[in-house]
Amino acid sequence: MNFASDNVSPFCPEILEALSAEAKSNAPAYGGDDISQQLDHAFSELFDKEVAVIPVATGTAANCINLSALVSPYGGIICHHEAHINEDESTGVAFFTGGAKLIAMDGPTAKLEADALDRFVAGQVNRGVHSVAPECVAITQATELGTVYRPDEVAAIGDVCRKHGLRLFMDGARFANAVAHLDCSPADITWKAGVDAISFGATKNGAMAVDAIVLFDTSLKHRVEQARKRSGHLHSKHRYLATQLLAYVKNDVWLKNAAHANKAAATLGDILIGRGASLAHPADGNELFVNLSSELASRLRDAGVMFHPWPSLGADIYRFVAAWNTDIGQITELNTTLG
Amino acid sequence: MNFASDNVSPFCPEILEALSAEAKSNAPAYGGDDISQQLDHAFSELFDKEVAVIPVATGTAANCINLSALVSPYGGIICHHEAHINEDESTGVAFFTGGAKLIAMDGPTAKLEADALDRFVAGQVNRGVHSVAPECVAITQATELGTVYRPDEVAAIGDVCRKHGLRLFMDGARFANAVAHLDCSPADITWKAGVDAISFGATKNGAMAVDAIVLFDTSLKHRVEQARKRSGHLHSKHRYLATQLLAYVKNDVWLKNAAHANKAAATLGDILIGRGASLAHPADGNELFVNLSSELASRLRDAGVMFHPWPSLGADIYRFVAAWNTDIGQITELNTTLG
Amino acid sequence: MNFASDNVSPFCPEILEALSAEAKSNAPAYGGDDISQQLDHAFSELFDKEVAVIPVATGTAANCINLSALVSPYGGIICHHEAHINEDESTGVAFFTGGAKLIAMDGPTAKLEADALDRFVAGQVNRGVHSVAPECVAITQATELGTVYRPDEVAAIGDVCRKHGLRLFMDGARFANAVAHLDCSPADITWKAGVDAISFGATKNGAMAVDAIVLFDTSLKHRVEQARKRSGHLHSKHRYLATQLLAYVKNDVWLKNAAHANKAAATLGDILIGRGASLAHPADGNELFVNLSSELASRLRDAGVMFHPWPSLGADIYRFVAAWNTDIGQITELNTTLG
Amino acid sequence: MNFASDNVSPFCPEILEALSAEAKSNAPAYGGDDISQQLDHAFSELFDKEVAVIPVATGTAANCINLSALVSPYGGIICHHEAHINEDESTGVAFFTGGAKLIAMDGPTAKLEADALDRFVAGQVNRGVHSVAPECVAITQATELGTVYRPDEVAAIGDVCRKHGLRLFMDGARFANAVAHLDCSPADITWKAGVDAISFGATKNGAMAVDAIVLFDTSLKHRVEQARKRSGHLHSKHRYLATQLLAYVKNDVWLKNAAHANKAAATLGDILIGRGASLAHPADGNELFVNLSSELASRLRDAGVMFHPWPSLGADIYRFVAAWNTDIGQITELNTTLG
Repeated sequence: MNFASDNVSPFCPEILEALSAEAKSNAPAYGGDDISQQLDHAFSELFDKEVAVIPVATGTAANCINLSALVSPYGGIICHHEAHINEDESTGVAFFTGGAKLIAMDGPTAKLEADALDRFVAGQVNRGVHSVAPECVAITQATELGTVYRPDEVAAIGDVCRKHGLRLFMDGARFANAVAHLDCSPADITWKAGVDAISFGATKNGAMAVDAIVLFDTSLKHRVEQARKRSGHLHSKHRYLATQLLAYVKNDVWLKNAAHANKAAATLGDILIGRGASLAHPADGNELFVNLSSELASRLRDAGVMFHPWPSLGADIYRFVAAWNTDIGQITELNTTLG
Repeated sequence: MNFASDNVSPFCPEILEALSAEAKSNAPAYGGDDISQQLDHAFSELFDKEVAVIPVATGTAANCINLSALVSPYGGIICHHEAHINEDESTGVAFFTGGAKLIAMDGPTAKLEADALDRFVAGQVNRGVHSVAPECVAITQATELGTVYRPDEVAAIGDVCRKHGLRLFMDGARFANAVAHLDCSPADITWKAGVDAISFGATKNGAMAVDAIVLFDTSLKHRVEQARKRSGHLHSKHRYLATQLLAYVKNDVWLKNAAHANKAAATLGDILIGRGASLAHPADGNELFVNLSSELASRLRDAGVMFHPWPSLGADIYRFVAAWNTDIGQITELNTTLG
Repeated sequence: MNFASDNVSPFCPEILEALSAEAKSNAPAYGGDDISQQLDHAFSELFDKEVAVIPVATGTAANCINLSALVSPYGGIICHHEAHINEDESTGVAFFTGGAKLIAMDGPTAKLEADALDRFVAGQVNRGVHSVAPECVAITQATELGTVYRPDEVAAIGDVCRKHGLRLFMDGARFANAVAHLDCSPADITWKAGVDAISFGATKNGAMAVDAIVLFDTSLKHRVEQARKRSGHLHSKHRYLATQLLAYVKNDVWLKNAAHANKAAATLGDILIGRGASLAHPADGNELFVNLSSELASRLRDAGVMFHPWPSLGADIYRFVAAWNTDIGQITELNTTLG
Repeated sequence: MNFASDNVSPFCPEILEALSAEAKSNAPAYGGDDISQQLDHAFSELFDKEVAVIPVATGTAANCINLSALVSPYGGIICHHEAHINEDESTGVAFFTGGAKLIAMDGPTAKLEADALDRFVAGQVNRGVHSVAPECVAITQATELGTVYRPDEVAAIGDVCRKHGLRLFMDGARFANAVAHLDCSPADITWKAGVDAISFGATKNGAMAVDAIVLFDTSLKHRVEQARKRSGHLHSKHRYLATQLLAYVKNDVWLKNAAHANKAAATLGDILIGRGASLAHPADGNELFVNLSSELASRLRDAGVMFHPWPSLGADIYRFVAAWNTDIGQITELNTTLG
């Protein structure tokens, strides 16, 4: 079984079906088609607020384009050290923003804490043009370590942002896993909690290649659209981005997929714990960070299980990621196989 | 019938079939999968030379990333005024290159002419750091006006580039249409003619969203891969870019599609000429630029034909673009319908 | 005599005296000193309006930083082909603006004409994110070809800008020469005529190294100061930029210097015309573009006169530039020497 | 007395004299003059190696332009958290490099330690295009906390750089203070120790506005000159940058000034220590970081002494900076005044 990443999964049948249906006819290019025109409405319903939706093919594009509309070229973006934008997107943020600086801070399980954030921001000495003033806070939901911010935790961060005049951005590459875990409304952990814009992930959770920039502050739309075009992220056959997204949110496919992945991760977690492993921290979503004995790690590998060591958390910590298509029955069988 | 653009066409059955087949199983992310690993080989065969292939989802990304590896931030890129990179990609070239300047020149039917290019480059006064020195020439094959460079024309431009120490880049968004028209080998109009790198288009000609950066100078690969990542164009489920590309070049689907589009355009052209229209210039590929009487233009519109006026070429000039899926039978019927 | 450029001149005695006086004592850094604090007031008086002044050491810095506050990274700047920002500042504009595009147009004697500009802007097809929308017009006063816009000409351009929602920027590297020629108030050809910001040149006209960004729209100040800092143009011993500027505008030194240079150019022009030369176009300021016979050109060179051919205007056109320190008596002697 | 910064000092008599002498005659612009042409030779003698010298007006410009030639837009620059490039130059490094990332690490008294650096670099997980690979190490000599690297310490860092294929850059804003302290040859702590390029500071130590980019790897010259021009840092009256620099290094003015500042700082340090203060760490150059009782701090302020608290080092830590013109007699009097 492959727990290396949720990126190893294919796209889901609902999306294949929708793409196939849309492979038969002509339609206007660059978003002028009927399907693309439905996006704003569909996501406004989903978020219970009028939003602007700009789809792109990757999460890095969604994050970086989004941030480029939220900060100036000389501004700072506060994020957790573990943040994907800090650790996994090369120099993308500086490239798209024209030079804005990531200001990394710590916090347990890859989460920023509102109080610590407040102190951190207050402690930033403003030396005018010499220093970099924070303009935005970026959080990831679910986090890079598989934990999930509760609505009140996001809201507390939102309050700190408002207090200091900062934008609040959410990298939602695994937003579905967070919502499925919290069983809350998408609004509760976004605009109602002070979030200005989100990268709404779909690729990891069943799409082929689409994430959506969702703007709760629709005044950002013009800048985002300009940034998307000049960075080569405006697709000519835009309808296929839209088709994926609509099929993804229709009939709660996104939540069904995420709930499945979360459950698969929990099932695997229980099995590993039953065999003496321990979680490095709570596994809220579809990612497990587990302390394994080297013996158990070996036996899992011998049984064909694929997963990554995670040395930044410790020598015996390993990451397992479940996806929308992970076979839970196979996980149970694995338990038997391990003997 | 919709002749507004080849971008209005869907993706072709061969690609749908390949994507469907690849929707069933897991595979490594970010290009580590078996399909992605086949790209270099497949395109090396196609071009009869060892090449490096880096797929991206859009033509603008392919062009701009490519150019960012060919010129310095303070360099100049000579292109035709009509070039897509000059007219249709916003400020993408400057964004990706860090500031390189497009130096536009003229030429009949959107083609650069080797002699004129030679004089133009020779006439650029080198004032050291004050002026912008050309570092690259960019040509489009087939051109934005639907014409095609013959192999000797490209080679003559290649000679001028070599003479002046310039790189030669080809925007091949409609490369297939050019090859189908010329009935030549892909090598003849690329590396054998002095081209360093090409954006090998697929999206307009039957793919969903993929164009390939093909590097004849493979030493550029590292810079291209870095630029792709930081600009958010590295897909996590990379295999679906590769799947599209492989299905596109397998069994000459790309040439079949392009030959069809070219033929459809020619058929339409004959009909229009038979009705008194005239071509603004030779229609080598799948685009027609036609001088229509306002009466004929109206009758076409009344018959449900979609196409764009092209005022930059003249008040009575209109563009018609055929695609891989244009129904030639329907064109013939159109002739009957027009009466 | 050296007519190669006004940049060959040294700095003037008034500035040397002021710098010497300011070389004796300590003072706060980065503009916190008393002298720097006088700039806004001094220039507000000079322009008869409250302005913000941000000094930098070069004209290129003044132009590019200024423009970076006036346009977005995806915007266009309309200027004359001959504009210094287009021809002589490498890729500076794209670098500072993050990618904005220079859109060059023609006009007699390096001047934009309001009517032609109006038609040009109106003729720019807005294709949304695909094309580059003009956001700013940049004019040079005096122009690169030594001509000067009359107040009504600037005002007419200002009206066109207002009509189309464009910013109006003035490169005033030789602003003093223009004001001296027109004998007008500085306000008449700037903010009263619709100019938002100017690069107020001093270096060519008697300073050592300082030009001032003068903002008639003071809301631009924050962005300009941030851009100055991050580009390394904020001097720690800022008072020496301010010292030069204050000495330059005090007692009308700037106008005295410019009037002298203009007069020297005119004197030389008369002599050359008397010997059969003709002006390529009116010489309003301190630059002459002259049609010389090769025989006269040779005799001038033999007499030790330094000047440049200007092939872009024609094979027999030469440029002569006078400066604040050009010895008019020596010009008269030259006439005698030439026999 | 003003110990707020060495930037509060004026420029020194030798430089005033040289500038005055150069204010009398014309000379070619943009570095074509005789004085500018002497720079390479003068600094090659000073460093006992053939170097290329490119002067600019500020330290930030020197640092950022220098770094832009040493790293790619997607590269990383390892520096100390306290580094001026990290703390005091806004987003300049990202702006000039096109997005390169500062990777900050710790070390006692603002110094990087070779062993820790080696482990740090070795510990950077190379995740290909996803992560940012270090390409350069930047150290400051003397450091921002007034300490000085010994030659063997620099050489050890140079070895680590060579081992890992990294460039080594030195911010020498207070290079003179370091050399004066070490009484070594400039070569010993630069190219002989593995340094590729240095920002050779002059402004803080007696110049008006000039720091020199000195390239030990002269192959970087072209990129540096292009970057200087496009960033507006090429002065038209270039000779005045050169004049300052030549007067600064002639007759060891630079070392005389620095030795004086170092001695003034030491004198002040002794007095403060005699009154119960303690140094936060060794004061090698012209900067003191001192632990003062609030009572002593008050008495100093009452006596008209200007200095800054330095809260990042502790609540009772204050910084005093002496300069080339600090009156040592006045420091002694201060001791008397304090009673």
